[in-house]
Amino acid sequence: MHQYQAPMADFQFLLKEWLNLDSHYLAIGAQGMDAELVSEVMTQGAKFAEQVIAPLNREGDEIGCKLENGAVSTPPGFAAAYQEYVGNGWNAMLGNPDFDGQDLPYTAAVPIHEMLNSANLSWRLTTMLTESAVLAVDKHASEALRQQYLAKLISGEWTGTMNLTEPQAGSDLSLLTTKAEPQDDGTYAITGNKIFITGGDHDWTSNIVHLVLARLPKAPEGVKGISLFLVPKFLLNEQNEAAEKNKLGVGSIEKKMGIKASPTCVMNFDGAKGWLVGEENKGLACMFTMMNDARFQVGMQGLGTCEASFQGALSYAKDRLQSRSPKGPQQPDAKADSIMHQPDVRRMLLTQKAFTEGLRALSLLYAQQMDIEKYCKDYRKAQAQQILAFLTPICKGFMTDIATEVTNIGIQVYGGHGYVREWGMEQLARDTRIAQLYEGTNGIQAADLIGRKLSRDGGLMLNATVEMLSASINSMSNKKQLEQAQMLLHEWHQISAKLIHVDALDAAGAATDYLHYSGYVLLGILWLQMADAAKKSANPKIKAGKPATCEFYIKRILPRKEAHRSVLLSSASDLMSLSDEAFDY
Amino acid sequence: MHQYQAPMADFQFLLKEWLNLDSHYLAIGAQGMDAELVSEVMTQGAKFAEQVIAPLNREGDEIGCKLENGAVSTPPGFAAAYQEYVGNGWNAMLGNPDFDGQDLPYTAAVPIHEMLNSANLSWRLTTMLTESAVLAVDKHASEALRQQYLAKLISGEWTGTMNLTEPQAGSDLSLLTTKAEPQDDGTYAITGNKIFITGGDHDWTSNIVHLVLARLPKAPEGVKGISLFLVPKFLLNEQNEAAEKNKLGVGSIEKKMGIKASPTCVMNFDGAKGWLVGEENKGLACMFTMMNDARFQVGMQGLGTCEASFQGALSYAKDRLQSRSPKGPQQPDAKADSIMHQPDVRRMLLTQKAFTEGLRALSLLYAQQMDIEKYCKDYRKAQAQQILAFLTPICKGFMTDIATEVTNIGIQVYGGHGYVREWGMEQLARDTRIAQLYEGTNGIQAADLIGRKLSRDGGLMLNATVEMLSASINSMSNKKQLEQAQMLLHEWHQISAKLIHVDALDAAGAATDYLHYSGYVLLGILWLQMADAAKKSANPKIKAGKPATCEFYIKRILPRKEAHRSVLLSSASDLMSLSDEAFDY
Repeated sequence: MHQYQAPMADFQFLLKEWLNLDSHYLAIGAQGMDAELVSEVMTQGAKFAEQVIAPLNREGDEIGCKLENGAVSTPPGFAAAYQEYVGNGWNAMLGNPDFDGQDLPYTAAVPIHEMLNSANLSWRLTTMLTESAVLAVDKHASEALRQQYLAKLISGEWTGTMNLTEPQAGSDLSLLTTKAEPQDDGTYAITGNKIFITGGDHDWTSNIVHLVLARLPKAPEGVKGISLFLVPKFLLNEQNEAAEKNKLGVGSIEKKMGIKASPTCVMNFDGAKGWLVGEENKGLACMFTMMNDARFQVGMQGLGTCEASFQGALSYAKDRLQSRSPKGPQQPDAKADSIMHQPDVRRMLLTQKAFTEGLRALSLLYAQQMDIEKYCKDYRKAQAQQILAFLTPICKGFMTDIATEVTNIGIQVYGGHGYVREWGMEQLARDTRIAQLYEGTNGIQAADLIGRKLSRDGGLMLNATVEMLSASINSMSNKKQLEQAQMLLHEWHQISAKLIHVDALDAAGAATDYLHYSGYVLLGILWLQMADAAKKSANPKIKAGKPATCEFYIKRILPRKEAHRSVLLSSASDLMSLSDEAFDY
Repeated sequence: MHQYQAPMADFQFLLKEWLNLDSHYLAIGAQGMDAELVSEVMTQGAKFAEQVIAPLNREGDEIGCKLENGAVSTPPGFAAAYQEYVGNGWNAMLGNPDFDGQDLPYTAAVPIHEMLNSANLSWRLTTMLTESAVLAVDKHASEALRQQYLAKLISGEWTGTMNLTEPQAGSDLSLLTTKAEPQDDGTYAITGNKIFITGGDHDWTSNIVHLVLARLPKAPEGVKGISLFLVPKFLLNEQNEAAEKNKLGVGSIEKKMGIKASPTCVMNFDGAKGWLVGEENKGLACMFTMMNDARFQVGMQGLGTCEASFQGALSYAKDRLQSRSPKGPQQPDAKADSIMHQPDVRRMLLTQKAFTEGLRALSLLYAQQMDIEKYCKDYRKAQAQQILAFLTPICKGFMTDIATEVTNIGIQVYGGHGYVREWGMEQLARDTRIAQLYEGTNGIQAADLIGRKLSRDGGLMLNATVEMLSASINSMSNKKQLEQAQMLLHEWHQISAKLIHVDALDAAGAATDYLHYSGYVLLGILWLQMADAAKKSANPKIKAGKPATCEFYIKRILPRKEAHRSVLLSSASDLMSLSDEAFDY
């Protein structure tokens, strides 16, 4: 079985030669940051991902999590790896420095996130959700709650969860019924059942901090009557230590397709003590603080599994000797040539490579905008917010849809061995499959993109995104590739602008095609930029590999956009005309 | 969890109104056969699939197979279901009547095969391979072997297996090393290790008949030195009963992604007694007798899982209440509308429906040609052989690639619940994933299509297929749809004819795109035909559903063909230019 190795050379190329990280940090005023420091962080992160959590991944899938006597245990080694992660400060990378966070730029943290996702997706999830919880508590909780919880969530001494979904309320949170009853001491008694709670319980930390959506008595119906509460597993004593058990517990853990080493819990709240976070009835807005970030993080999960699958497939293709090349024997001393010599195998590998490296570029572009949003106080902050809002559903939806394709290719390259668990390739396909579903299904992402992000304010988010891309394209040196990129951007802009005026039903019918169309075009632009930047690279493999992969992408992948484009401006009548009864006979 | 129901109305429509089964049987001289008899067979088959094996499917996945003390056990109920299957004569549907087979036409058996695959793919596999083994023994074995084994394989008293793959010999069988040493008594001592042997051992029958590829001493190297042997688990006594244990055993069973209730065995042959089937060194040709059939059967597995997934998704979409329709409340008395009212959910369901029913039409068209091949002794037999040879890799590759897409859509319609095993949707995606791999990976199918089937004899197989389709299109009554179908067929024919002259390397680079292009075009033609035929249907749902689904297919699925077509006649240089070393950095 192939052992994961962090793709350091590609990170270096993208950050230094494509994104010009030093100029970027200078421009946004990220003091003390430079590309060398990021390199050092990546080197250490790679060690942790490769040596500590990657070796636990395969066994973790086989053993899974267990619920015994109301407590969840994770597979062997998982808790110890978490202690090492926390001990080395990884959990605090992005945290507020007032609470001992390291306050690193996103461009430094996102490569680490990718590595963690590649190495062991199940293991990564709980730490990812803690980072999301930190954002919500830092921004919306009272000063008292921040003082009690934030430092320990940032360090990772405690973990955090998001409790949104209920059996009857998934995509539609307006239907949630968990109750929050005000108590005389200013706290709330939380009662209800939540499902699909990642890291709802585990054996890693002395406390777990649940962020729970619930309804106050007489709250308005629908999403305008939802409030957010902080509900710890253990109530704190006067020294702010986990003490008395709160009235909540794990009902069961789900038996899932993948991410089996991540406990997905049914949580029962039986009058548990909770504290309001943010204002009454504004809970969904608080949750949305975490949403852009969490959705992007789920996109990153797609990227992480793509990289792991590509590595596994490539190493097997180089080793596996079967048949001869159509060009005649290439390894005459062996009984057969490696399957790397089969054009169709190379097509599969290049598809994986073009998507993986393209999505990585997209992730770092997004990280760059997050940096701008974080550091800049001028007009650039608002611009970056617009861009991030527009790119978020594309990252979440496209990166995870593509990951299912890429990880399935990984299986295919192995032939029948890809179907056997010990090789690890099918686990990647099973693990990454969740990413199309949670944090809003990809259908929800598509609806968000076309129904809200594209059309709100007459297209401001789109325009900000197009302007940013247009400016970054203009520095390309190859005129032909520059023109290609400009044409793609222009076409995307034109069609998007038309879609703003489509009615809601037709837009909903075009939503997924628009998301995919946008993803393919965006990756095309990024590939042309990368090919251009690679010409100056000192790394001969980058210099050869980027233009060749760009050519492949433009020729063999980008044409897919046409199939999506062809239905964008048409009516949804073909979707709606058939009666429900005539769907089956 | 949705319980499978056989799609009887669609079978009836396709067989009676689209394929005109009575005329077909008359034309080929299938005496005693008519559509009513086929209906009766289907009704009984549906009962078995729905009531006997479908209820075992979910638990079978959880429990899986076990190897203890060298013997394999299958999940509870599996063996009893097999006894019922055999007792009711299902195993003998296609068998030679000289050995108590029922000798049914393929058009009668193929709907049953689909149902078995839908209801419980794991359970189905062993019976499918027995049918393949019957074909090889009937056609190639000596009269003595036929007398000893055939009746019991046809009835199902014993099952059969195919032993091809070895650790170092998968796609490339020329590398296989299992030895067959001639013994004084005319038998052979078989020694070697085989992997991926479906049904290599189980607790269903008193004997298992292995068909094993091996090499004779001094056999030529490569595929011209491979012979086929019949190697029973138990040697027969003079009453032709299973008696003494042969020198073979199960080394282990694979831990797989899916089809967990089907035992996939590592088989060790330690000088096991075997009998030559067919001529020495002509083993691969004997195996190819089963290959068209087995590859088509694997395509049928794709279809079966598509149907099961579509049914599950449709029933959930009708029940699940989340959010309101973009048109405003459709179920005002409920707290939300069913997700059937969401255009994007309908897009997913229509994609499943369009593929499932399109592939079903393809499967019955193939069955019709198998009937012609079986019953006709005149020029039609040779024509049907050409058509079957051409369509086989398309059926195997396209039907199974599409099944992975369709079953993944099934998960997506369920949202997070699709990822939870108890709903059964993710099992379908895991189970069907094997079908892209075995009986020749889909890359091998694509290479077979473009490299052998298309170009051999200057395109005879292509021409026979185009002629057959052209003739069947001509009976369409709607002129516009007729012209659309003719245009598609013409385009396919033209591009295919050009591809015959492309050099081997470029053809290998275009292979998968050509297979997919062909699949999309073929389904387009079949959809236009079905929409035309449905206009006269007495079933109002068929009358409404087929044209609406045809419109959907033409508008939202068929455009994919363009992305594949655009690379067909281009060079493979973009695939081959990058050095192996520059695939990673």
